[in-house]
Amino acid sequence: MDFSIPAEFQATLDTIRRFMEDEVIPIEKDFLLGGMAPVQARVDALRQKVKAMGLWLPQIAKEHGGMGLSLMEFGMVGAELGRCPLGHYVFNCQAPDAGNMEILIQYANPAQQERFMKPLLAGEIRSCFGMTEPEFPGSNPSWMGTTAVRDGDDYVINGHKWFASGADGATFCVVMAVTDPNGPPHKRASMFLVPMDTPGIVVEANTPVMGHTGSGWASHGELRITDCRVPAENMLGPMGDGFLLAQERLGPGRIHHCMRWIGVSERSFEILRDHLLRRQVAPGEPLAMRQFAQGWIAESRAEIDAARLMVLHAAWAIEKHGLKAAREEVSLIKFHTANMMMHVVDRAIQAHGGLGVTDYTPLSFFFRFERAGRIYDGPDEVHKLVVAKRILKRRAAELMQRGEL
Amino acid sequence: MDFSIPAEFQATLDTIRRFMEDEVIPIEKDFLLGGMAPVQARVDALRQKVKAMGLWLPQIAKEHGGMGLSLMEFGMVGAELGRCPLGHYVFNCQAPDAGNMEILIQYANPAQQERFMKPLLAGEIRSCFGMTEPEFPGSNPSWMGTTAVRDGDDYVINGHKWFASGADGATFCVVMAVTDPNGPPHKRASMFLVPMDTPGIVVEANTPVMGHTGSGWASHGELRITDCRVPAENMLGPMGDGFLLAQERLGPGRIHHCMRWIGVSERSFEILRDHLLRRQVAPGEPLAMRQFAQGWIAESRAEIDAARLMVLHAAWAIEKHGLKAAREEVSLIKFHTANMMMHVVDRAIQAHGGLGVTDYTPLSFFFRFERAGRIYDGPDEVHKLVVAKRILKRRAAELMQRGEL
Amino acid sequence: MDFSIPAEFQATLDTIRRFMEDEVIPIEKDFLLGGMAPVQARVDALRQKVKAMGLWLPQIAKEHGGMGLSLMEFGMVGAELGRCPLGHYVFNCQAPDAGNMEILIQYANPAQQERFMKPLLAGEIRSCFGMTEPEFPGSNPSWMGTTAVRDGDDYVINGHKWFASGADGATFCVVMAVTDPNGPPHKRASMFLVPMDTPGIVVEANTPVMGHTGSGWASHGELRITDCRVPAENMLGPMGDGFLLAQERLGPGRIHHCMRWIGVSERSFEILRDHLLRRQVAPGEPLAMRQFAQGWIAESRAEIDAARLMVLHAAWAIEKHGLKAAREEVSLIKFHTANMMMHVVDRAIQAHGGLGVTDYTPLSFFFRFERAGRIYDGPDEVHKLVVAKRILKRRAAELMQRGEL
Amino acid sequence: MDFSIPAEFQATLDTIRRFMEDEVIPIEKDFLLGGMAPVQARVDALRQKVKAMGLWLPQIAKEHGGMGLSLMEFGMVGAELGRCPLGHYVFNCQAPDAGNMEILIQYANPAQQERFMKPLLAGEIRSCFGMTEPEFPGSNPSWMGTTAVRDGDDYVINGHKWFASGADGATFCVVMAVTDPNGPPHKRASMFLVPMDTPGIVVEANTPVMGHTGSGWASHGELRITDCRVPAENMLGPMGDGFLLAQERLGPGRIHHCMRWIGVSERSFEILRDHLLRRQVAPGEPLAMRQFAQGWIAESRAEIDAARLMVLHAAWAIEKHGLKAAREEVSLIKFHTANMMMHVVDRAIQAHGGLGVTDYTPLSFFFRFERAGRIYDGPDEVHKLVVAKRILKRRAAELMQRGEL
Repeated sequence: MDFSIPAEFQATLDTIRRFMEDEVIPIEKDFLLGGMAPVQARVDALRQKVKAMGLWLPQIAKEHGGMGLSLMEFGMVGAELGRCPLGHYVFNCQAPDAGNMEILIQYANPAQQERFMKPLLAGEIRSCFGMTEPEFPGSNPSWMGTTAVRDGDDYVINGHKWFASGADGATFCVVMAVTDPNGPPHKRASMFLVPMDTPGIVVEANTPVMGHTGSGWASHGELRITDCRVPAENMLGPMGDGFLLAQERLGPGRIHHCMRWIGVSERSFEILRDHLLRRQVAPGEPLAMRQFAQGWIAESRAEIDAARLMVLHAAWAIEKHGLKAAREEVSLIKFHTANMMMHVVDRAIQAHGGLGVTDYTPLSFFFRFERAGRIYDGPDEVHKLVVAKRILKRRAAELMQRGEL
Repeated sequence: MDFSIPAEFQATLDTIRRFMEDEVIPIEKDFLLGGMAPVQARVDALRQKVKAMGLWLPQIAKEHGGMGLSLMEFGMVGAELGRCPLGHYVFNCQAPDAGNMEILIQYANPAQQERFMKPLLAGEIRSCFGMTEPEFPGSNPSWMGTTAVRDGDDYVINGHKWFASGADGATFCVVMAVTDPNGPPHKRASMFLVPMDTPGIVVEANTPVMGHTGSGWASHGELRITDCRVPAENMLGPMGDGFLLAQERLGPGRIHHCMRWIGVSERSFEILRDHLLRRQVAPGEPLAMRQFAQGWIAESRAEIDAARLMVLHAAWAIEKHGLKAAREEVSLIKFHTANMMMHVVDRAIQAHGGLGVTDYTPLSFFFRFERAGRIYDGPDEVHKLVVAKRILKRRAAELMQRGEL
Repeated sequence: MDFSIPAEFQATLDTIRRFMEDEVIPIEKDFLLGGMAPVQARVDALRQKVKAMGLWLPQIAKEHGGMGLSLMEFGMVGAELGRCPLGHYVFNCQAPDAGNMEILIQYANPAQQERFMKPLLAGEIRSCFGMTEPEFPGSNPSWMGTTAVRDGDDYVINGHKWFASGADGATFCVVMAVTDPNGPPHKRASMFLVPMDTPGIVVEANTPVMGHTGSGWASHGELRITDCRVPAENMLGPMGDGFLLAQERLGPGRIHHCMRWIGVSERSFEILRDHLLRRQVAPGEPLAMRQFAQGWIAESRAEIDAARLMVLHAAWAIEKHGLKAAREEVSLIKFHTANMMMHVVDRAIQAHGGLGVTDYTPLSFFFRFERAGRIYDGPDEVHKLVVAKRILKRRAAELMQRGEL
Repeated sequence: MDFSIPAEFQATLDTIRRFMEDEVIPIEKDFLLGGMAPVQARVDALRQKVKAMGLWLPQIAKEHGGMGLSLMEFGMVGAELGRCPLGHYVFNCQAPDAGNMEILIQYANPAQQERFMKPLLAGEIRSCFGMTEPEFPGSNPSWMGTTAVRDGDDYVINGHKWFASGADGATFCVVMAVTDPNGPPHKRASMFLVPMDTPGIVVEANTPVMGHTGSGWASHGELRITDCRVPAENMLGPMGDGFLLAQERLGPGRIHHCMRWIGVSERSFEILRDHLLRRQVAPGEPLAMRQFAQGWIAESRAEIDAARLMVLHAAWAIEKHGLKAAREEVSLIKFHTANMMMHVVDRAIQAHGGLGVTDYTPLSFFFRFERAGRIYDGPDEVHKLVVAKRILKRRAAELMQRGEL
């Protein structure tokens, strides 16, 4: 076991951090106060810079135009980018596009690659993902109302989706729909690539989330899909493998989120730390001298360090043993990291007093929009049950084999 | 000790609850999605109804047009009103006006009563309170930058305030300013009634808080006060008693907040409970059947019940022994209730999954805007230290008297 | 609602506190270091004093020789007695005897009253309660292995019990046994009064609990019952009502424990507070000056106050509406108070450093032996589920009646 | 970064685990019920086996007869040994001897090596460490009452120590005493090797800790040192370097404890997991099917994994950068791991119901005796302050250098 980071890769990390500090974080303030619109042009310019620096698509293999990092290396990059809400977007590794890229790379046929995958990797278009439905619990993925019925060379899709993040302005949507309602639960659904200008699919609303409907990438679309007709060749991957693709998309997606949350936590920690030094509670007495404040520093430091190592270990395990073998680790970091992050953000807010609830720091943004991290891609409770049941079943099998149960 | 509620008063509570259910909560949705503007007219109409029903100003003595409730009775009313963000406003007992009413009733001279107090009690105007300053910590109230300098028959005020809630549209501001910079710390400041149309006082901005600048009553003004000249007779209460008035205003203000938070917690509990019954996680299996969900119900119930009793006990203690004697109790409920509320709100959000972070329930509003309850009117940490130091000092005195320390 | 304590009853409380301080707590140290044996004689002498002072059996009606307090009044007395592990014993209201007294008063026939109840009330004998079985979960009370089979005028009992507290030296045991294995689950068992000198019942061991087998009252017997023959007239209460009696015994038992735990918490708080004042971390700097320590004081104070009010409210509800109606309240205080107590004890230990884990304060005793309070008489989890299911069912019925579910 | 464990070292770990399972854990039960006395002979025999297997002194360099493991490797071994309270003792890496070995290896002169170090490494004798004093806070190590005054060729020591673990039966004590009361605070004390048969040093009592005075290695001696005369050559290390040696001893000592606590946590987790599978709450329904129980499994798994990685990372950092550079990491794991362990132990107890508080599992032992882990070698609060102050100071220096503070 060796925790060293090679000097060369450390240099890459340092470059990214400087870029974040010098270029990305300075435009964050306008995003915090006004959303994507006022910063879209500057963000697009930064994306070109990132390309020029060779840092584009850090999570993607070189053959597809990415940096070709290992998952563990991307974990460290993701923690740098996560320090600012715009970081991942600037490097074209933002959700939901990053997840869509992964399944496109793996499953898209040549025509789909040309039309959907390549422009997405190039950052020329955005995409969304239509899976969650308001009427059905996300924790039971095989129970779904959207259907796709074969009709000649087409499929006709009907359904209702929400939390299709970034649907506003997206060029296409990856839609999950039931194609075989009587099949075994996990083989019922398939995935379709649906251009957003197809008749019958409409962003009915950007769902108001934590006080904002948002816009562009920073929004969550509610989609109404009515007799929406797509050619059969728009199916992504094999018929009936929708659930499988979703799992393959979500697995790395979860770890990407965890890495980003380490960044959110580190940034919150830095803001907390610096505020404690700068804020005087009496002339000449910075808040940093107070034990309560020191407690926040120490507890946050311990919790972030612990979660960071777990996330990197899970990335290592996925690379080494595959996503399936590392499934428990992924569930463990999913709920552990999301909760840790919220604790750190909460302490940082508390330390700031009134300033902490204003939008003059990113803490208020983190507090409002990262809370969903304990819910999306499987709520805390679902991940806990997944882990526990696997551990308990494995042990039950051992004990039974030994005749001890 | 007797926990009974007299039948007559229970009937009043029931009337108020029905009114909240039938009239106030139905307009809440538009407030959650659009702030005060889209509901202002309806809210104003409801205020007239409340007057007609004899429920106006529940916290104010009958001689001033109120219901004349005891503080403990108002505690129970406040918990009903707190179930909806608009409740207190509809009954004219909303912060910051309620606090301003109290010091006006106690300290306003006849002219101030006519001009400021009476229209405020009548709900014809709104007010704000200018105390907190961005450059100075709220936890050290005697350290303040705003000054009022006597000049002939006037005072000339200069300073910078923020978190003047409801400044947008207010008719006057109660401004705290240093009048004797060399006096003993707690005698340095005085209070002034400053009409908002006085030259030199301006709402520079509504501070963006948790993603919103807000408007009207639901906003937090940043005030720039520059050579603002008010007649000396606009001083409220005696010269040098600004700090004293602030304390007398904050004491009941804190307990009013706590009562309201019981309402926030109860409403969140109801929303949680009903969602658990209605949301099916599999066909025929409501979420309510899950142990995790049942745990949320039981823990929330216990925590709310405990906090409710503490708040009522503190109200009783204030009535019985005076605010000064009950100061520890007020500090205890301030931090205890605010934290309890956030736990209940958080569980309710978690139980709702994606729906919990949308603005289709009031939970997201509570999550964002009640978080400040752990900060305003003294952050958790300050109240903990106040309580602890008083307990420890009292005991130290006892032990010393006995020669045991 | 009125939180006043009448002057006369306050005087009784003061008398009890003084007696605890002057007479009971001084012998506590020997109990902490050596168990019951070294203090038994002194404890017995104190019992005589308590009788002489008219404070004997505070929980029992006057007609049976007790003080005739209301349940809420006894709640306040119980909190005084709970400040020392010997308090309840000295006043003859200790578990398990107090619970046995209650069902004897309610169900014993005249012969049983003479032989078992009267000497128990007089403090001449001790008793135990044989319900829990090592092979069956306590959370499922109708699933039990002990049987009582009618044979002529006798019942022949066979079974295995543990956690029969105080069995060592007890004169009789109240044994729960299945009398109708095919009856409805809650009518299967009956209760028997079994003299401990009956052939076939034996204290096989005092179960080692938290490092001690204990002795006398302060022990937990494991009972082996083999062909133990008792006359049919030793059945307590009606045939098949064992479960009912157990519930009637446990309900008040739980609230008695909660009251005692308030005392444990208050004592721990006092020890914490005084240590903070006395312990210097540097010359002239008591630990009390540290914010961490002040945080412990404030948090503990808030939690104890909240729990105390809840417990008293539950006592009031039982008196006013009956045990059945107050069942949720009893479950709420059971888990809430037990957890609160452990937090307070834990903070007090932490504040003491090395001294905190020694037996030179009662904190180590509380830490070890009160931990079981989260388990006996229903573990936290069972009480949470009981409360939640009742709340959810009641609401489901309401919603269904309205056609909303 | 690479989390792989080389196959060869994994084989060593497997051997140790098998030995623990087959040889050490089987004698644990008698230790839990009776302390060291009933198992001493068997433990001594196992020590010979360990020597024969080449696993003796895993923490010590080969040249001194140890396994020569790296600190990170020993971390993994320590987690195996920590699964049973006797593990470290059997491998001769138990506190306080392991700490004494380290400073002896580094500082003992040849005579001291012969007399004290070699037999200690060989496991022929035991030792203790006399630092903590009842009258002075451990958190202020330079404030101490014990003195050593030069008198001819001797030092005459006077003082009062407690928590000299294992003093009962120890051959010598490493005593910390003030040799220069007027020197700079951290240069006042020196260390002395004091044979326990020296006149004037006496184990006045084994301090009762969590209900037990204990005996032999498993005890905590209170030492009275009165005019105890030792030759000047018994000073260990340079004059005035007592505090330095204590730090060098405590640093690795802390990480050894953390590694052991991972073992305690893993064992508790295993016991929890197996009990959930075996305990039926209704016929055919193991406790493992309950969500509350599954929550305990998942939360415990996440917390242990996170802490384990942090501890290994700290070990790696010490090896790579030295103890001084890794001081913050050591403090972070000290409080984080100790608290994590107590949470896991607590959940395991709760899951067991009544059985959890008995001594029929090691959980009750862990609960009672590992609680001190949050206190000894620096309480949680001290480590938090150490970490926070260093982080804040370092940042303050940075900001000042940039002119930003």
